Amino acid sequence: MPIVQIDWVEGRSVEQKRELAEKVTAAVCEAGKCPPEAVTIIIRDQAKTNIAKAGVLMADRK
Amino acid sequence: MPIVQIDWVEGRSVEQKRELAEKVTAAVCEAGKCPPEAVTIIIRDQAKTNIAKAGVLMADRK
Amino acid sequence: MPIVQIDWVEGRSVEQKRELAEKVTAAVCEAGKCPPEAVTIIIRDQAKTNIAKAGVLMADRK
Amino acid sequence: MPIVQIDWVEGRSVEQKRELAEKVTAAVCEAGKCPPEAVTIIIRDQAKTNIAKAGVLMADRK
Amino acid sequence: MPIVQIDWVEGRSVEQKRELAEKVTAAVCEAGKCPPEAVTIIIRDQAKTNIAKAGVLMADRK
Amino acid sequence: MPIVQIDWVEGRSVEQKRELAEKVTAAVCEAGKCPPEAVTIIIRDQAKTNIAKAGVLMADRK
Repeated sequence: MPIVQIDWVEGRSVEQKRELAEKVTAAVCEAGKCPPEAVTIIIRDQAKTNIAKAGVLMADRK
Repeated sequence: MPIVQIDWVEGRSVEQKRELAEKVTAAVCEAGKCPPEAVTIIIRDQAKTNIAKAGVLMADRK
Repeated sequence: MPIVQIDWVEGRSVEQKRELAEKVTAAVCEAGKCPPEAVTIIIRDQAKTNIAKAGVLMADRK
Repeated sequence: MPIVQIDWVEGRSVEQKRELAEKVTAAVCEAGKCPPEAVTIIIRDQAKTNIAKAGVLMADRK
Repeated sequence: MPIVQIDWVEGRSVEQKRELAEKVTAAVCEAGKCPPEAVTIIIRDQAKTNIAKAGVLMADRK
Repeated sequence: MPIVQIDWVEGRSVEQKRELAEKVTAAVCEAGKCPPEAVTIIIRDQAKTNIAKAGVLMADRK
């Protein structure tokens, strides 16, 4: 604990995930007053056909 | 907000996801009295080897 | 399966949750071609101090 | 209900998932005093580039 | 990792949660070939007004 | 999108949640190259009786 689950659109590079892990962990530790070892992050890459906003799939947005 | 996460068995078409997004968003807005723009949907397609009911994988059900 | 998890702002009535359950289940069944008995819904009521958009807690929005 | 979601590192065999489903269901039923038919399990296989501990991706750990 | 999230109906005792944690962890370790220290469990107690099956809230079932 | 779900031990102040929302959003935007308006955060406060590590509830740890 804390456990962080992040859903975002697929296509990000490993370098971006590396940066995400590092920066989000730092942010959680500062706000939550906990050591980095306590923080687990799960990244979920989602296809644009699997996300919708306002009833419209991201894959269908222009 | 609201955020809707839907896990179902993989294999649905994009057309089915389109219909799901549209109809679930409408349903949430009617019950929750919120505008469609507020609703985000995440669809998670799951393999039958990754779902179990009553201790048995869906892939093993006859 | 399908399993639907809905996070929204707390304060909705049981009547609204009843309507949500009924309508979302119907929507999922139509799009997913599955019987109502297959659909489970979990509603998660969230305090406005526990949701943020654009880095700002809903409780702090004016 | 109960609904169990398990995130772990990808690469497990179907045999391991079968064992997981069987044993976790038994464990939940014993503790929760519920019949096996009530238990649904979702297994989420995660790539090592999508999990981080202490700010470091599992893919980068030595 | 693994991370296990369990949603069930509220009302279980701490003793039941203790048993759940112990037995589910053992089950995951046996199937996943991992040490107990690697396993995190989150238990989510849900009100019967916040769960629905077949479109009907558990609170409304007779 | 992105959607961030954070489970941590209950007892944090609103001020800590405010800081969490602000800093995690900034971290996600930097790594993901997206505007802050796209980021939604859900904070889930968990009781120590509802989290376990290595098969032991946090409430039972000395």
